[in-house]
Amino acid sequence: MAMDGYRGFLGLLVSALLVGFLSVIFTLIWVLHYREGLGWDGRAPEFNWHPVLAVTGFIFIQGIAIIVYRLPWTWKCSKLLMKSIHAGLHFVAAILAIISLVAVFDFHNTLKIPNMYSLHSWIGLTAVILFMSQLLLGFFIFLLPWAPLSLRAFLMPLHTYSGLVIFGTVIATALMGVTEKLIFALKTPGYDTFPPEGVFANTLGLLILVFGALVFWIVTRPQWKRPKEPASLRLQPNGGTPEGVEGSMAINFGNTDKSDSELNNEAAARKRNVALDESGQKSTM
Amino acid sequence: MAMDGYRGFLGLLVSALLVGFLSVIFTLIWVLHYREGLGWDGRAPEFNWHPVLAVTGFIFIQGIAIIVYRLPWTWKCSKLLMKSIHAGLHFVAAILAIISLVAVFDFHNTLKIPNMYSLHSWIGLTAVILFMSQLLLGFFIFLLPWAPLSLRAFLMPLHTYSGLVIFGTVIATALMGVTEKLIFALKTPGYDTFPPEGVFANTLGLLILVFGALVFWIVTRPQWKRPKEPASLRLQPNGGTPEGVEGSMAINFGNTDKSDSELNNEAAARKRNVALDESGQKSTM
Repeated sequence: MAMDGYRGFLGLLVSALLVGFLSVIFTLIWVLHYREGLGWDGRAPEFNWHPVLAVTGFIFIQGIAIIVYRLPWTWKCSKLLMKSIHAGLHFVAAILAIISLVAVFDFHNTLKIPNMYSLHSWIGLTAVILFMSQLLLGFFIFLLPWAPLSLRAFLMPLHTYSGLVIFGTVIATALMGVTEKLIFALKTPGYDTFPPEGVFANTLGLLILVFGALVFWIVTRPQWKRPKEPASLRLQPNGGTPEGVEGSMAINFGNTDKSDSELNNEAAARKRNVALDESGQKSTM
Repeated sequence: MAMDGYRGFLGLLVSALLVGFLSVIFTLIWVLHYREGLGWDGRAPEFNWHPVLAVTGFIFIQGIAIIVYRLPWTWKCSKLLMKSIHAGLHFVAAILAIISLVAVFDFHNTLKIPNMYSLHSWIGLTAVILFMSQLLLGFFIFLLPWAPLSLRAFLMPLHTYSGLVIFGTVIATALMGVTEKLIFALKTPGYDTFPPEGVFANTLGLLILVFGALVFWIVTRPQWKRPKEPASLRLQPNGGTPEGVEGSMAINFGNTDKSDSELNNEAAARKRNVALDESGQKSTM
């Protein structure tokens, strides 16, 4: 990566971290300063864990998990390590998302408020279920070493696509949640009188949206992808074109995503071909 | 495109059209059957144009506009024609979006409801402003023939990125709008008693989200891109790597997006090089 591109990347990364961190801080200020604080009593302070954990885990940490492969200083780390970090961050996000769900169901049950009637709850629960499926599937197919390459190659575009759709859906769900909460909570004076809490939480919504847009930019820049293994290491397990797998959304995790030990074996076996290929390619320039 | 990929594309396209069309129908049923119908009287029937036009123009038509380059039977059409259709559909979407805004502001003003206090309005107006800027910029830079290639190459990744972010933002705004409207409108019985209108409009919200996800899948498949012009026609106006421009999100509209007349001139001038390049490339296989 050229120095210029590196600076651009750093600038955007710092912006994303800053905006994501600000979103978490804003959520904390919202519940601690404007609302009833935090607690685990089945009442409002327990509900307040819902936005705090959702924004912290399901938005901020998930966003970072999505872009970890892009950090240039990790490109020298093993693929397995980076996959573990990617999976580990998503796992933390999942735990926080589940606790945030427990908080809101518990709160509803204590106060005899019906569960699952709102669009926010329908889409939010769908997102959590999809997120868990994605995490499980990712763990068994891409992190554990047993899945055949053809399966990995087939599933990788789906994995990256659904990861981004779930992330976007979670952001949309958060915006619905902010909307709901402000309408329910702001009565005298109402939301439509521009009270400080309304303006503050609207700003939180904007921050969350900007965080999502920054993560989406970072993860879709082809020049910020983790570099591929040498060309000769690319298997085409089921005869498909490698571009079809590799090119999708510029998010692919090194070819057909082999474990590192596999790569090393193949590297030795195919070393001779690399040299031939490279000289061949140079002749066309 | 292989027959298999073609069938897959058709299946997804038909699904997207169906789900998008259903979203429009659901919105119409919502306002005509459950709400006050349509009219232009400054009251509820005028407000009801807001969701109808937003879903029809800003979601359904914008979604189609985003994927027009993907239709395989248009690949033999000139680039200029396809750009005009892309721009034209977005223009129609813009007109409907603006009328939908007029409807809601008019409604608010008649009933002395404050404007622009909600997160829905903040993000929705931001999306409209970004959409208009994108449309204007796209028109002057990519449709009119005067912009230098280097500028087009530089702006194309931004154009495709912000197009998708705006589309996603509009979908999130619609979901907030459904949430707001149901909370405001459903009082006796309330939204939390699962009245038919609440379940129906929640389903509309899901349809809108699925439509967005389908469009996002179609537009990010590299194998469904409009084929590139021959390799030798690719200019690298500012010395940048062509992959950096072409690879972004698999959405690029034929190289550095020259108008057709430019392409024809260059095609003649560079015909000799094509032959040389192609023979050179064959030698490496």
